[in-house]
Amino acid sequence: SVADFIAQNGGNIIHAEQHTDQEVGIFFQRVEFSLGGFNLEREKILPAFGEVSKKFKMNVSLKFSDENPKVAILCTKEGHCLYDLLGRWHRGELDGTPAFVVGNHTDLKNYTESLDIPFHHLPVSKETKPEQEDKLLKLLEAAGVELVVMARYMQILSADFLGKFKKQGGQIINIHHSFLPAFPGASPYKQAHERGVKIVGATAHYATAELDDGPIISQDVVRVGHRDSVADLIRKGRDLEMVVLADAVRAHLEHRVLDYNNKTVVFS
Amino acid sequence: SVADFIAQNGGNIIHAEQHTDQEVGIFFQRVEFSLGGFNLEREKILPAFGEVSKKFKMNVSLKFSDENPKVAILCTKEGHCLYDLLGRWHRGELDGTPAFVVGNHTDLKNYTESLDIPFHHLPVSKETKPEQEDKLLKLLEAAGVELVVMARYMQILSADFLGKFKKQGGQIINIHHSFLPAFPGASPYKQAHERGVKIVGATAHYATAELDDGPIISQDVVRVGHRDSVADLIRKGRDLEMVVLADAVRAHLEHRVLDYNNKTVVFS
Amino acid sequence: SVADFIAQNGGNIIHAEQHTDQEVGIFFQRVEFSLGGFNLEREKILPAFGEVSKKFKMNVSLKFSDENPKVAILCTKEGHCLYDLLGRWHRGELDGTPAFVVGNHTDLKNYTESLDIPFHHLPVSKETKPEQEDKLLKLLEAAGVELVVMARYMQILSADFLGKFKKQGGQIINIHHSFLPAFPGASPYKQAHERGVKIVGATAHYATAELDDGPIISQDVVRVGHRDSVADLIRKGRDLEMVVLADAVRAHLEHRVLDYNNKTVVFS
Amino acid sequence: SVADFIAQNGGNIIHAEQHTDQEVGIFFQRVEFSLGGFNLEREKILPAFGEVSKKFKMNVSLKFSDENPKVAILCTKEGHCLYDLLGRWHRGELDGTPAFVVGNHTDLKNYTESLDIPFHHLPVSKETKPEQEDKLLKLLEAAGVELVVMARYMQILSADFLGKFKKQGGQIINIHHSFLPAFPGASPYKQAHERGVKIVGATAHYATAELDDGPIISQDVVRVGHRDSVADLIRKGRDLEMVVLADAVRAHLEHRVLDYNNKTVVFS
Repeated sequence: SVADFIAQNGGNIIHAEQHTDQEVGIFFQRVEFSLGGFNLEREKILPAFGEVSKKFKMNVSLKFSDENPKVAILCTKEGHCLYDLLGRWHRGELDGTPAFVVGNHTDLKNYTESLDIPFHHLPVSKETKPEQEDKLLKLLEAAGVELVVMARYMQILSADFLGKFKKQGGQIINIHHSFLPAFPGASPYKQAHERGVKIVGATAHYATAELDDGPIISQDVVRVGHRDSVADLIRKGRDLEMVVLADAVRAHLEHRVLDYNNKTVVFS
Repeated sequence: SVADFIAQNGGNIIHAEQHTDQEVGIFFQRVEFSLGGFNLEREKILPAFGEVSKKFKMNVSLKFSDENPKVAILCTKEGHCLYDLLGRWHRGELDGTPAFVVGNHTDLKNYTESLDIPFHHLPVSKETKPEQEDKLLKLLEAAGVELVVMARYMQILSADFLGKFKKQGGQIINIHHSFLPAFPGASPYKQAHERGVKIVGATAHYATAELDDGPIISQDVVRVGHRDSVADLIRKGRDLEMVVLADAVRAHLEHRVLDYNNKTVVFS
Repeated sequence: SVADFIAQNGGNIIHAEQHTDQEVGIFFQRVEFSLGGFNLEREKILPAFGEVSKKFKMNVSLKFSDENPKVAILCTKEGHCLYDLLGRWHRGELDGTPAFVVGNHTDLKNYTESLDIPFHHLPVSKETKPEQEDKLLKLLEAAGVELVVMARYMQILSADFLGKFKKQGGQIINIHHSFLPAFPGASPYKQAHERGVKIVGATAHYATAELDDGPIISQDVVRVGHRDSVADLIRKGRDLEMVVLADAVRAHLEHRVLDYNNKTVVFS
Repeated sequence: SVADFIAQNGGNIIHAEQHTDQEVGIFFQRVEFSLGGFNLEREKILPAFGEVSKKFKMNVSLKFSDENPKVAILCTKEGHCLYDLLGRWHRGELDGTPAFVVGNHTDLKNYTESLDIPFHHLPVSKETKPEQEDKLLKLLEAAGVELVVMARYMQILSADFLGKFKKQGGQIINIHHSFLPAFPGASPYKQAHERGVKIVGATAHYATAELDDGPIISQDVVRVGHRDSVADLIRKGRDLEMVVLADAVRAHLEHRVLDYNNKTVVFS
């Protein structure tokens, strides 16, 4: 039916992928089509599609690939994920645009500004947290940010903030430096070292009110051994974190990730 | 000092490896030396070494590579790990000798016996468990078994059994079908599927009284995706389990594993 | 059109997957459907489908999942791949049936026969090769074998043999103990060691007249280091070879592999 | 003997590692020791050690960890490896100092200069190559550069240049975007796509006069499938190239790499 709708309006399907979750009985489909020759204007597509979507009780989301979603990055002191992401945008490897960077410390201010990206310093203490989250929310709203990336941001965003940003239509990706659900919370490499694991990992997931428990988008691992100290795990993990976070951000910005039931479908 | 002792007695060091755990201040060393030309008889080596070991407060263990440790394998219905291990012994890839196989079901009896290895059926219920563990202990003692391998044995051995077998000088390796410490306990693939992880793993560890919490010897992982059902995870995991368990058993039988503080040093 | 044809005849599509090779302009599709309620008898399906397939100039292949393709395994002295495959069939993990094993040595005869599978000894010298390949061809024909698996068979099958077996409708999968196209031909682990690579691999591919150059079905790798001797590479490689070969054989027997232009499409 | 020499002069061994290549009969050792309390001045250590080294016919190299080797980076248009390396230096993850960047195009000039690192534009044509290599050699000499990193530099350095820079005591690390020795030379991802491999890789090695044939320092791989176009391989490969090159550069700058017989020992 989706293909028919597109064909009847003169569209040309470039790529289509589907998936059925047999257990919960949900069908997922992602259709990429070209607007060249399409006989509906952009704002009329969704209304015209309403009949089809009503018939199958679909949740529909329509994105245009020439839209350029704004992204904000949160960081603290460790810069590898931030450098990596900004580098990718700078050389044109990632969709979207970095709108600004927010740090609760100023360590990464100079680097950010050297690439002509605004840096906001929002230091957070127990007392100032609600106030600072409010400021952040306003910055996000003002810039029209759709995606927040927590690039080793060592603070927990409140459920209140998460709810409000979600209402604005925003989503948040976090990188956790362990192979979740192993070692959630603080100091995962220290935990991993104490447990004596032979492999460590990194996990990029959507942030939810439950700490380190949101839908997983991307994971990767690297072997370690008894010779590796906590410092070695941290060093080896950094490369993982960069690559895993970038992988998740890219998939999200290419509209290839669907989340449901605290899981994700990541289309290819 | 170790090298001196060996050299002074005419021994020849073939391989030596050491490791220092800086945090707890323990020094580990594994020295392989040839007895050709050695001027001490086997049973006199440890007493003669006593002075050195006392001086440095060493824990010393001396093994002869022509000894052939006896191994018992516990299984239930799933045969892949058992087939794999017996195949490796049959073609001479593993040290030691499989003394016998114990199953709480009889599914794997025929295959075991086709390779001329004794199979004992010890069905376990809540009531019969102590009694059956007693029988098992006697079988192990009678055959002089030093290593028990739980090859997807879907029963938990009691702390009492573990303690007694340890007193006999025995050790137990278990394969858990997840990337521990993620998903301990029952149905790890089902748990992994529900959590929506993008990678699953397998972990071989020494069994301790704390379920799935013993020192990890070997781990490996494989990528999965949203298309993989629980059955797919089980299938993909089987190959991991075989290889990870065999890796741990080989390392153990080659006396390359030292466990301390609920961790392992695995020498190469 | 394919879906329409199935639907109109009362069939129910269970799984469908497609792929387009944009460069050469070929479209691939694999459709699994249930015959329950299908209103065409098995032998009438292909003729009835003729119209559709003619229209799109399709190459069509129809397989029934309750057919049980016969498989022959060729081996020499090294048994790990043979043991692994026979074990998988024995415990019901693989489609098809092992019809017989052929060895140019008798090392693996006892194990094969212990599982009640016939073993044929066909020793090969330069002189006897044509004659022995003839015997093999007759054995394959007599047993109705569709797939030959070279499980570390250290002989090269002649182009003549390959051609004749292909005419009988047969296909041949080989495991090469390197990450092809690196290190084709003899002693790949020795070559790898000399080159000082940091990773070694294994490759399962369809055998063609060009040595180690057929379409690749499956590959995997493992890390090695300067401490690893050739013997270590051989040992580490064995586990790879087993798993990679089994993966390729499984995909083939589940009719998930399409080969074209010396490449493969491996559906999931 | 090495340990004795250090101990007798009041030094304290921090880390020691050895390796024996049994085939060629070479023994390698790397000893890290602290100069705190050492009773020889820096320039007197090697002469004093002469007796020991003569006795065992050692090749000895002595490096001080507070020396800060100068590094030059060569690049063309693709910036991911350059960005990644400069980022690592900027945030203090790598030893050494980037002295300058040379490009045969100017695409990466702005980014380099935004981090306050000099950029030299040395365009290369068949005619100007000797002259430009001469200029490069002078730049390297003037800045006292010890390591040149070819960060996706799409030019081949002449044997003449390699010889002269080696005479100055310099070494050169190149990243090749394939799993060598598979797919040497131009367009490895295109070659890999045509061959239909299921895994692609990246290789960091010392540059020698023989193209893509120098001693391998680091390698890594990533899975690909029939859905991946050449563009997908390029994208997936970029993350590999960054991480593999950085790994090799780090090991080199920490003096952990020894090369001999066109191989490397990479100490941990």
